[in-house]
Amino acid sequence: MHVREMISTHPDVQGSAADALIKCIEECYACSQTCTSCADACLAEDMVAELRQCIRLNLDCADICLATGAMASRRTGSNVEVLQATIQACADACRVCAEECARHSEQHDHCRICADSCRSCESACRDALSQVH
Amino acid sequence: MHVREMISTHPDVQGSAADALIKCIEECYACSQTCTSCADACLAEDMVAELRQCIRLNLDCADICLATGAMASRRTGSNVEVLQATIQACADACRVCAEECARHSEQHDHCRICADSCRSCESACRDALSQVH
Amino acid sequence: MHVREMISTHPDVQGSAADALIKCIEECYACSQTCTSCADACLAEDMVAELRQCIRLNLDCADICLATGAMASRRTGSNVEVLQATIQACADACRVCAEECARHSEQHDHCRICADSCRSCESACRDALSQVH
Amino acid sequence: MHVREMISTHPDVQGSAADALIKCIEECYACSQTCTSCADACLAEDMVAELRQCIRLNLDCADICLATGAMASRRTGSNVEVLQATIQACADACRVCAEECARHSEQHDHCRICADSCRSCESACRDALSQVH
Repeated sequence: MHVREMISTHPDVQGSAADALIKCIEECYACSQTCTSCADACLAEDMVAELRQCIRLNLDCADICLATGAMASRRTGSNVEVLQATIQACADACRVCAEECARHSEQHDHCRICADSCRSCESACRDALSQVH
Repeated sequence: MHVREMISTHPDVQGSAADALIKCIEECYACSQTCTSCADACLAEDMVAELRQCIRLNLDCADICLATGAMASRRTGSNVEVLQATIQACADACRVCAEECARHSEQHDHCRICADSCRSCESACRDALSQVH
Repeated sequence: MHVREMISTHPDVQGSAADALIKCIEECYACSQTCTSCADACLAEDMVAELRQCIRLNLDCADICLATGAMASRRTGSNVEVLQATIQACADACRVCAEECARHSEQHDHCRICADSCRSCESACRDALSQVH
Repeated sequence: MHVREMISTHPDVQGSAADALIKCIEECYACSQTCTSCADACLAEDMVAELRQCIRLNLDCADICLATGAMASRRTGSNVEVLQATIQACADACRVCAEECARHSEQHDHCRICADSCRSCESACRDALSQVH
């Protein structure tokens, strides 16, 4: 991904791209892909009936991660209050999804990787909150 | 849209679809389309340079409305806390976007229509919050 | 939805919004919501293991419908070739999803409604193709 | 991104993830973010009125890249014909966007980076087409 290069060449940013925000954007796009993959892999498992809640949380997390990644990418004008609320909702979605995936981590490698990705994204969201003002 | 029919035929819902949630989903998809259109119409205006903030808020609102509409459509399993935070963020995005669009309502009909659509979606989101538990 | 009002107030369109394109945009957003709901309802069915292909096609159709609806909403500048290819891909996705949903229409009302929604969207996409030039 | 790990742990894939498809998914998510950023940076430029077509193509490309990235991530069941049509539309969108961004590459670094990202995604899409069957 070229998040840092893109944001540092924005006419209103002029090189001073905030590290925590860049990391948050990268993690949001990565986590959305991971959650989309995990929902799809869970669906193919023999025990799919026991993975319904995991699939649901994966799909929700994939949606909010994409919205957050796109919104946080915008540096023209300002939408601080909304961006903060969205990053917060995204961090919550990642936490809840990581907890559910962690329950299946020993049985399913895709859930183990997805739990890690969600925790990493949650952490990046929380770090970014302090830089969004 | 077929939101009511779809949710009332969900195996775990059995006909008792909550009215406020259905209205919220319909408004989220409609508002996302309206905001996408308004950003595009603002971009074509002669005074585009003065509409930057409006375009930015339109794009942000379109993104969070889509995530909210999809997430609120899911009735399998449960993700209450995350859904509440997302609907709240969506209501905030709609309020902020409506306020900005209202500033250009006399000059641009698309901003007037979009302000109405955002206010209607904000109201539907706030009504739905009480039914998400 | 306010598709007609929004497009007819676009500064470059000036009231002459093409009916087929407006219908296509409305159907794309509606079909995306229906497919998201149908995937979720299929996931909750006892026979979920037999509905994997239906869920997969629902999710794919929901994604391409959203991209098509947003892209077709834009009237600033021009992207004819790409819009045509995308509407064509969307019509294909709707056809394939309708065929799969139709296989479960007698058992599951959500699949019956979704098959209708996909057929309606496919038809609107094909009608719009002749007006995108 | 964890595309390779996620796809290689899918129960139906069993380690044999196709390299070209993995690259395509990674490029689609990266290109969507780059195009979202480029649209936003163009909007902030003094010469925004001359960048309308670039912004429009950026937004279209961002949308189809996301749909393609999500659809290509799914390995449960099969949707070959639709996936091929979508990847083809995505490659077209990337080519057209790269050509427009290249016109502004000397003036705007974000357009130069975005043109590279679009060309790279177009190439990955074309390579993936031969592996989707």
